[in-house]
Amino acid sequence: MASKDIATLLIHCPDRPGLVHDVTGFIFSHQGNIIDLQQHIDSEQDAFFMRLEWSLENFTLENDEIEARLQPLARRHEMQMRLSFASQRKRIALFVTKENHCLYDLLARHESGDLPVDIPLIVANHETLRPAAERFGIPFHYFPITKENKLEQEAAQIELLRQQRIDTVVLARYMQIISPAMIAEFPHRILNIHHSFLPAFVGAKPYHQAFQRGVKIIGATSHYVTADLDEGPIIHQDVMRVSHEDSVHDLVRLGRDLEKTVLAKALWWHVRERVLVFKNKTVVFD
Amino acid sequence: MASKDIATLLIHCPDRPGLVHDVTGFIFSHQGNIIDLQQHIDSEQDAFFMRLEWSLENFTLENDEIEARLQPLARRHEMQMRLSFASQRKRIALFVTKENHCLYDLLARHESGDLPVDIPLIVANHETLRPAAERFGIPFHYFPITKENKLEQEAAQIELLRQQRIDTVVLARYMQIISPAMIAEFPHRILNIHHSFLPAFVGAKPYHQAFQRGVKIIGATSHYVTADLDEGPIIHQDVMRVSHEDSVHDLVRLGRDLEKTVLAKALWWHVRERVLVFKNKTVVFD
Amino acid sequence: MASKDIATLLIHCPDRPGLVHDVTGFIFSHQGNIIDLQQHIDSEQDAFFMRLEWSLENFTLENDEIEARLQPLARRHEMQMRLSFASQRKRIALFVTKENHCLYDLLARHESGDLPVDIPLIVANHETLRPAAERFGIPFHYFPITKENKLEQEAAQIELLRQQRIDTVVLARYMQIISPAMIAEFPHRILNIHHSFLPAFVGAKPYHQAFQRGVKIIGATSHYVTADLDEGPIIHQDVMRVSHEDSVHDLVRLGRDLEKTVLAKALWWHVRERVLVFKNKTVVFD
Amino acid sequence: MASKDIATLLIHCPDRPGLVHDVTGFIFSHQGNIIDLQQHIDSEQDAFFMRLEWSLENFTLENDEIEARLQPLARRHEMQMRLSFASQRKRIALFVTKENHCLYDLLARHESGDLPVDIPLIVANHETLRPAAERFGIPFHYFPITKENKLEQEAAQIELLRQQRIDTVVLARYMQIISPAMIAEFPHRILNIHHSFLPAFVGAKPYHQAFQRGVKIIGATSHYVTADLDEGPIIHQDVMRVSHEDSVHDLVRLGRDLEKTVLAKALWWHVRERVLVFKNKTVVFD
Repeated sequence: MASKDIATLLIHCPDRPGLVHDVTGFIFSHQGNIIDLQQHIDSEQDAFFMRLEWSLENFTLENDEIEARLQPLARRHEMQMRLSFASQRKRIALFVTKENHCLYDLLARHESGDLPVDIPLIVANHETLRPAAERFGIPFHYFPITKENKLEQEAAQIELLRQQRIDTVVLARYMQIISPAMIAEFPHRILNIHHSFLPAFVGAKPYHQAFQRGVKIIGATSHYVTADLDEGPIIHQDVMRVSHEDSVHDLVRLGRDLEKTVLAKALWWHVRERVLVFKNKTVVFD
Repeated sequence: MASKDIATLLIHCPDRPGLVHDVTGFIFSHQGNIIDLQQHIDSEQDAFFMRLEWSLENFTLENDEIEARLQPLARRHEMQMRLSFASQRKRIALFVTKENHCLYDLLARHESGDLPVDIPLIVANHETLRPAAERFGIPFHYFPITKENKLEQEAAQIELLRQQRIDTVVLARYMQIISPAMIAEFPHRILNIHHSFLPAFVGAKPYHQAFQRGVKIIGATSHYVTADLDEGPIIHQDVMRVSHEDSVHDLVRLGRDLEKTVLAKALWWHVRERVLVFKNKTVVFD
Repeated sequence: MASKDIATLLIHCPDRPGLVHDVTGFIFSHQGNIIDLQQHIDSEQDAFFMRLEWSLENFTLENDEIEARLQPLARRHEMQMRLSFASQRKRIALFVTKENHCLYDLLARHESGDLPVDIPLIVANHETLRPAAERFGIPFHYFPITKENKLEQEAAQIELLRQQRIDTVVLARYMQIISPAMIAEFPHRILNIHHSFLPAFVGAKPYHQAFQRGVKIIGATSHYVTADLDEGPIIHQDVMRVSHEDSVHDLVRLGRDLEKTVLAKALWWHVRERVLVFKNKTVVFD
Repeated sequence: MASKDIATLLIHCPDRPGLVHDVTGFIFSHQGNIIDLQQHIDSEQDAFFMRLEWSLENFTLENDEIEARLQPLARRHEMQMRLSFASQRKRIALFVTKENHCLYDLLARHESGDLPVDIPLIVANHETLRPAAERFGIPFHYFPITKENKLEQEAAQIELLRQQRIDTVVLARYMQIISPAMIAEFPHRILNIHHSFLPAFVGAKPYHQAFQRGVKIIGATSHYVTADLDEGPIIHQDVMRVSHEDSVHDLVRLGRDLEKTVLAKALWWHVRERVLVFKNKTVVFD
């Protein structure tokens, strides 16, 4: 019985001759047909990166056999591998506070089919966006956070995310610093949107900092959350021209368009398994 | 004796399983080390495209043997191939009229080493830029063109380009339509810069057309010259924001920055063997 | 009693000395304080354009007196004038078909306060987006359109828009050509979003045309609707880089981000009375 | 005798009612015809900024009378004024080190008439670009700089610039920190090009810092030089998309296109008297 499924394999390992030949040989020998292949060699780090998509239509291995059968190859080349299937939709949790633009943008993409994921829940530290969640019929979980209850509330959040088998957390303008426990639970699987072109204007109120400095360009950056605030691997950035005529209020308003499109694009690449992290930088196979 | 040279192979052929495996097998079996590999499948056209760079440091074939040894593979897969070597610098002819910006831009890149080609001559249909050519010590060939002498002068140009073993012609704001004989002599090896975002504003005075229409963006397009004016395969395009405050004169002035950077980038890709033409479109392996 | 209201005056007239002095004299003599003044002279057309915002806090005229009191000035300089007040929110009708991205984008901006208008109704020629409208509590009017009933349905639409005192119609990916009667009813008050950088790819399926031509950039254009299809005055345009790797399907998906931001920005300028139309071109006082 | 000259007046002062009316009254009462007027109010700082261009064709004052006659107006409103005339071309000194791209770019613009200034000299701390200067027939002054002779050499440079009545210094990739004496001599008249989007990557080797951080965008910033390194008022910035495939060497190469166009545009605005500095920020009347 032919499958219409598609497999995606992300690899990185030390660079050496024959890697592409070996991996494509594995696919070829099991009747897989490569749909997309991208590789990158970081010659400074002597590191090899590859992304492979192949059709499982005539593939002679079952989906759940593939990983094991790749092991000898992986061991031989000291490969880090990540295998996934188009048929397995990622389960995403959206974290929000009060601003609606990233939330609505992602929900609209989801509804139109442009974002092929499941969104089983929304987490918020304010009630503001409950009506928005309810409009789209997505369960809204309110976790008010104070200095005192923060760790406790995060533990409850983690528990909820586990129950819901959440794969990836998206901080869609969630105005809280994430604690180490959450970061450890979702390594390189928490996406944030920071409202500046990092590394400029780290921390709070970046538009105010930008206005103060008198920059002629503002930006937004989506990155994976790591233990160092605003220092995680950058997935995507974009910018917009501004001028002396724009007040701080204008920058905030204009920047929202950047924030929502930058976050959505980073999430798209993440969901399509197009992002590899290596030494705090990303390889994005666009 | 180890060579430091690098080989680049551009391929396109009907898509079928095993192509990457086969080609990388050829490289691997002769001790080549792949530096860069990019492939693209046009599933609508069922066409496969690949660009491969490999180090010849330990390669077991001589440069002049490689093409022949690839023939069985090429025949088996009905491949179109183009093989080149980093050690063979392309010989470029620059065609100009009166405007200096693209000319100086390319000459400055050439002088700084950013454009690794030879520029043995400049061809012009006006004397205006002779001093510019002489400043950089490049022979300047003046071919005044009238309706009557056009074909004759082009024949002389072709003769000159043959003598100088020119590989690629760059129309760096050359204000003449190229005749079929020249195009046939340099198939997909004549680059033009058109001062609009094609297909908008084909033909003469595109900035005037743009001003007339009231567009908010102007552009420039670099493409290969074919028999259909401004209809050749597009290599690169870029745009710039303009406003009601910009006169036609401003558009002309502002557009020069687009023209020179777009042409230079297209030429860079062309020179690095990163462009494949297929059915009047380009695959640019950036 | 001091008013917090703000007046905006848009003017165009033949250029002559003293215009700014005269108009600012009117404001100054009635104790108005200018908040923003922009002017533009089209020296080719010998035309003068100005936009003035002033605070009504200490203004010595009532809002409904101002227009009449400006008349002598207007007559003297043959001025076309448009006076408006921040306190009068524009009433906008959104026209949609099946695609949700522009609709949700505008509704989200409206909800967050970033788009200071009233949206009393949504008009659609398909039922698809009724749930979206209902989620936001906005009346949804379904007008199925066939070749036979088109004029009749448009007449009914116009009647509805009149009843609701609609000021501006926004075609938020409304897949119908607007008839002359509607255009006449809303001169330069119907905004469309066309999914190409006009004048390239006029008419149907611009992404397919773009794919076919092999462009490296796609765009979107918001313009006022006039009797000539896709030929109205352009308000705003933006573009996005694409490559040979993008299928038509990708272009359609990627282009949505352009469409929604370009339409929203054009609408923002329109709503803020920042757009003047003159000879099928716009002056946008950004 | 009618003059074809054009006057430009830059003003800033505390905001108050009637400023535009008063200043345009001055022009109007002496038969000047306003060509361009732009104003900006910084409501946070309560500051007013204006740029006025008017034709001197029928103006009833001589050029050298105007400044004095404006004094009463200036005193009444506590205005800072800068008056200039199109007929007085600015005299520019270009400072360079080894890289040729900004130098050639400015010289090409100058030769084509796109940069209406005089360039009486080039100053360099290396001999590398002497041939480039000589090609364009511009005197090249070589000031080798060591830790020991730096202040002495700068004193000699200042002396030279005075002799040549230099108005503005352009650091066209001049790899030396400018000392306070030079900065004091040319307040807000030294333009620098920094190869990052400031405030990111201040100081040395910004492309290396950018590569290290893994940013997806690189930039360039042109600013006025002040006593704080890389902290002066920003005039213009632009950016370019990069990816994991770009090495540091690529960033350096690609960034040159940004550097030259950003510097040229900032200089264009400066030369056209379009830039006002206020509290370490610029108002650019584009």
